[in-house]
Amino acid sequence: MNVKATLSLKRGVTLKVHCPVPLPREGGSLPRKKALFIVGDGMADRPNSLLNGLTPLEAASTPGMDKLAEVGMCGIVDVISPGVPPGSDVAHLSLFGYDPYKVYRGRGGLEALGAGIEIRESDVAFRANFATVDEDMTVLDRRAGRILPEGDELAAALNGYRPKVAPDVTVLVNHTTEHRCVVVLRGEKLSHMVSDTDPHKNKRVLEAMPLDGSPEAKKTAMIVNEFTRYSYEVLSNHPANLKRVKEGKPQANILILRGAGRVPDMASLRDLYGLKCACIVANALVRGVCRAAGMDAIDVKGVTGSFDTDLTAMGNAALRLLDEYDLVFLHVKGTDSASHDGDVGKKIAMIEKIDGMISFILEAVDLENTYIVLTSDHTTPVTVREHTGEPVPVVIAGLDVRVDEVKRFSERDCARGVLGRLRGRDIMPILIDYLGRSHKYGA
Amino acid sequence: MNVKATLSLKRGVTLKVHCPVPLPREGGSLPRKKALFIVGDGMADRPNSLLNGLTPLEAASTPGMDKLAEVGMCGIVDVISPGVPPGSDVAHLSLFGYDPYKVYRGRGGLEALGAGIEIRESDVAFRANFATVDEDMTVLDRRAGRILPEGDELAAALNGYRPKVAPDVTVLVNHTTEHRCVVVLRGEKLSHMVSDTDPHKNKRVLEAMPLDGSPEAKKTAMIVNEFTRYSYEVLSNHPANLKRVKEGKPQANILILRGAGRVPDMASLRDLYGLKCACIVANALVRGVCRAAGMDAIDVKGVTGSFDTDLTAMGNAALRLLDEYDLVFLHVKGTDSASHDGDVGKKIAMIEKIDGMISFILEAVDLENTYIVLTSDHTTPVTVREHTGEPVPVVIAGLDVRVDEVKRFSERDCARGVLGRLRGRDIMPILIDYLGRSHKYGA
Repeated sequence: MNVKATLSLKRGVTLKVHCPVPLPREGGSLPRKKALFIVGDGMADRPNSLLNGLTPLEAASTPGMDKLAEVGMCGIVDVISPGVPPGSDVAHLSLFGYDPYKVYRGRGGLEALGAGIEIRESDVAFRANFATVDEDMTVLDRRAGRILPEGDELAAALNGYRPKVAPDVTVLVNHTTEHRCVVVLRGEKLSHMVSDTDPHKNKRVLEAMPLDGSPEAKKTAMIVNEFTRYSYEVLSNHPANLKRVKEGKPQANILILRGAGRVPDMASLRDLYGLKCACIVANALVRGVCRAAGMDAIDVKGVTGSFDTDLTAMGNAALRLLDEYDLVFLHVKGTDSASHDGDVGKKIAMIEKIDGMISFILEAVDLENTYIVLTSDHTTPVTVREHTGEPVPVVIAGLDVRVDEVKRFSERDCARGVLGRLRGRDIMPILIDYLGRSHKYGA
Repeated sequence: MNVKATLSLKRGVTLKVHCPVPLPREGGSLPRKKALFIVGDGMADRPNSLLNGLTPLEAASTPGMDKLAEVGMCGIVDVISPGVPPGSDVAHLSLFGYDPYKVYRGRGGLEALGAGIEIRESDVAFRANFATVDEDMTVLDRRAGRILPEGDELAAALNGYRPKVAPDVTVLVNHTTEHRCVVVLRGEKLSHMVSDTDPHKNKRVLEAMPLDGSPEAKKTAMIVNEFTRYSYEVLSNHPANLKRVKEGKPQANILILRGAGRVPDMASLRDLYGLKCACIVANALVRGVCRAAGMDAIDVKGVTGSFDTDLTAMGNAALRLLDEYDLVFLHVKGTDSASHDGDVGKKIAMIEKIDGMISFILEAVDLENTYIVLTSDHTTPVTVREHTGEPVPVVIAGLDVRVDEVKRFSERDCARGVLGRLRGRDIMPILIDYLGRSHKYGA
């Protein structure tokens, strides 16, 4: 390059200025910018008296995350809005740049997507449990003993049912794991605005009720109620259940449904920004959100939604995927599970495990051409064991970000960063802009 | 004044309190508060490796801006929203307090306003170039050689055309500078939702297409296409062009149109807040936004949109205008142009030139009665040469603002200020409130 000017800068530095500088947007020969987006589920927390008033992120040893904070720019994020505790589904919709108030249509469709079930725009899907009820339809065991090797067989006995109240509709029953199923209503003029039949306790099975005044909701509720009775009739007399009775096991004699949902009404990240995206996510719900955003869900041996997940395998796979994909999303569930268990020691251990993966990634990744985002989808205090509404910390690292003075990744350290306080929906546009994929508004 | 109370304050100060204090809102005899609003176009930037990781604002010597930061309150501003790169038109709408998503209707109307053309609410305006095309309508020179002394004459030959497809419409052709025109369609039931005929490259002239399903857009596209053919017919045979051919110059044998727009649908700052506003803006597009906001556009000798603009003249004129006007808006384009050129040295020089004007203004202005706002309309990194979506720094100085500890005006220093992270649309209401012109919401 050609030295065009020598500048005396106010911080006492004299610099030779080379012009022109390269053009990242036009320069076809420049490497395409990539992104790694990492979420520790429920990783943010509250100050904890067991930790001398520190949060688990503040108390844990996190050299990798701290390095990221040091080379990146930090902030805090209200994933939905201040004080609103998000579920993991809407939280991830928001972190991917969507407005959940516009696109979210319940959990069922996302669960179905996450379980790898082909689901259509007009389908309504439910999470469902094989359960044990008595003759009065009172639930004796919401999970029918949980261990259910007969699940596939029982699901097959119900699959394809055409309800009398709506013969144009087909009920598809997909057994996933243990006592769990995804039930899909396939047809037209259906609605996800119906209540659960699952009483969530050992009470009587509920009647599904329409949750708005639409004929679609009324029709869907009728279908659900007819199918629930049908499942009891078929399953009560099913040979597999008669065998379970003989073996002293609880019968799986009904399917109880919850979380009606349709797939979100949204364009993929590829359609919106031309990004080819992959994700490594064990959790079905979050994986469903990723698939709804158009990400390829990649299975990695050893990666699970539990504490024993192999994050070295995840980190290795992520680095490989960055060759092929523009954006790779990594999700670790264990921090949230430890929080729901109220286990602060386990949470810290899980944070340190994620930190190890980040250290490993930072050693290998090309930060000149890769942006890294690290955040959480919501706060889950171990003292509360549920999601709460505090903001979560975020760091964005990569070429030419406005590096600030924050040197530790935590809820309070990041609050002093240059990003200030953002909404969850802001993260993706900021990242997209650094990737050179944003669209100028106006002239 | 009468001593009403003695207070012991928490920092160990004992004060005699005189009540009542003057009432700026009611006190007709108190001087009317004024405001000076200064924008360095595209002044914000990214950390730059050529500047040891500093931004141009951080690297430049800016005693004036720093003084303003020291006596004012600072923050950062997402002019539209995080990650969204704004054009200068929507950016200024936003900085003037308007919601561009509601009021913006394309660039053409603003360009026409900025060029001083009288334009009506129902008009649709375009930016247009005299261009050179071959017989196949392929563009040979988008600017017809750029130097076009015959521009007025050629425009007059087209001006007043009444298209056959819509005889109620009149086409007004205004030559502005060099090869540039503003074309206005005057009539009813027109739409700005039509595409460009300008191919922006040396390709065939495009057919204008309606951009929505409205009959207005369809009608407007037909008018544009007929007028484009008409311009070729008339200009190809125009004596001025025959003379250009003889002189070996490229013919200006067509008008190609782009950026259809209507004037924004908005009330003036005078109607909204009773403010009498002036602006000193050389750039036609930004000047158009100012005029749409009801500002008087003041021409100042020596003030241009280029690097050689006379900012001493601008500063002097601004101080004079403050006698007559409530708000004076100053716009300097050179920082953006240097960024688009990728020239960091020129950008720093331009920042320091703006800084000189600010130092000069600070020496002369009455800060007891004048609020000063300094910001940028968007980030234009010299490394990217295009607008990007990062927030811009802002400082608001004047009587009784909540002065913070920020002592330097830059992207990262201002991020630590008391204003936090705002949206562009927030700036004007804050200023209006300090001017004592805000409207209380509620009782």
